[in-house]
Amino acid sequence: MSAKTACVLIIGNEILTGRTQDVNLGHIGKKLLEVGVRLQHARVVPDVAEEIIRNVQECSAAYDYVFTTGGIGPTHDDITAENVAKAFNVPLEPNPEARARLLRHYGSEEHLNAARLRMAMIPQGAALIDNPVSTAPGFRIKNVFVMAGVPRIMQAMLDGILPTLAGGPPIKTRAVGCFLPESLVAEGLTALASRYADLDIGSYPYFRPGGYGLSLVVRGSDLKRLDQAVSDLCRLIESLGGSPVLLDEESADPAPDSQSQARR
Amino acid sequence: MSAKTACVLIIGNEILTGRTQDVNLGHIGKKLLEVGVRLQHARVVPDVAEEIIRNVQECSAAYDYVFTTGGIGPTHDDITAENVAKAFNVPLEPNPEARARLLRHYGSEEHLNAARLRMAMIPQGAALIDNPVSTAPGFRIKNVFVMAGVPRIMQAMLDGILPTLAGGPPIKTRAVGCFLPESLVAEGLTALASRYADLDIGSYPYFRPGGYGLSLVVRGSDLKRLDQAVSDLCRLIESLGGSPVLLDEESADPAPDSQSQARR
Repeated sequence: MSAKTACVLIIGNEILTGRTQDVNLGHIGKKLLEVGVRLQHARVVPDVAEEIIRNVQECSAAYDYVFTTGGIGPTHDDITAENVAKAFNVPLEPNPEARARLLRHYGSEEHLNAARLRMAMIPQGAALIDNPVSTAPGFRIKNVFVMAGVPRIMQAMLDGILPTLAGGPPIKTRAVGCFLPESLVAEGLTALASRYADLDIGSYPYFRPGGYGLSLVVRGSDLKRLDQAVSDLCRLIESLGGSPVLLDEESADPAPDSQSQARR
Repeated sequence: MSAKTACVLIIGNEILTGRTQDVNLGHIGKKLLEVGVRLQHARVVPDVAEEIIRNVQECSAAYDYVFTTGGIGPTHDDITAENVAKAFNVPLEPNPEARARLLRHYGSEEHLNAARLRMAMIPQGAALIDNPVSTAPGFRIKNVFVMAGVPRIMQAMLDGILPTLAGGPPIKTRAVGCFLPESLVAEGLTALASRYADLDIGSYPYFRPGGYGLSLVVRGSDLKRLDQAVSDLCRLIESLGGSPVLLDEESADPAPDSQSQARR
């Protein structure tokens, strides 16, 4: 059985101009690991109709699941829903359930202006995705999940989606730290990685005020193999004169706050 | 004259698993605006040979410039250089100038181990990109600029690249803030945006402890048109009972620290 694959499609000029720092991609990637789905690809596209249509079509065809973020609000640059509909050649239509939710949220018909009603326009045949934060729903059509861009809303939507995915066993992470230069560890690490081709092994040097170090990260679903790899990693570090430090999974995956640990 | 277009290709499993928060995309997007190049697309791909090859080929064909980040270090998972070479069907070969730089950096031949020498392997015909931070160079081949993933190194490389790009007039940003709900402004904003189809106009609500608000952002190269649009935006806000606040360009593009201002 091969693991299910996923792709994220981030929609919005604001990400490409650097106005807004995306934080959704990493969150989605981590959450998918927990349900055994591998995020294999991501794209960022501008608020341009043809771009959204083409990328939705390409990604929907290439991956088991596609998650889009952004562009489902009430303004002129929120064009995700209409173009996802076009990508699948179905009409965009007023969704009675979405309208009812908005009506409850805004309290009366007179507050349901044209802009707000845009958020009840859903591609025909799509299933709504709950928005427990601000009501206006996302939707699923075929294998594409259309979510909000605001992280708090996106996260709430994703929490509702995850249990519905057909994933596999959770993909777990182990990590070992040391204070050796990456280029000293590289040769032994290559040999080790080839013995554990069933696992993902990454090498992430970091440079911080006060020093540098190296995190070696192993990912996979087979806990026994993970433990074997970690034990081999520790022996490798010791053989090079280093002192391995087992990092707990939490430390191996710190809340993403910077790219200081990125690989060169 | 149509503006030059660009694409960013972020290479690395660590971005897709959420281990590392990418901060390079926004930096590149902003810097390109200054030299009149529009970042129109970005992709994140894992450390998988075929993925790198295919995405480099697709993006190189579709955009004027491609900027890759990540995967040019010394370890087994640093496979960007060899696969960019494959994408263009040229051999990867020891580059004498890159080797000389590494030799000066590491001080002696005996410190140039096999892993470090990997960083002197450059596709045939590529031009080196200076790395004033940690020496190991990036390279340019055709329209693809291959850069490091560590932000401090990537930024230094990009600073050297920017003056060599054939861009256009700088793309400037203006922004107006107010405390109206986005769905109230939406209708007038749509009409305004259609009158300024030559500019990019974005609507970004934000939700923060203590309140919410709306930033309306206008981008373009024609300063007169920008000022006209801003003045029309202010009138629109006033007509809806709001008080427009002119944000300076710095405030319109705050250092990206969160997605709290993202659009739903």
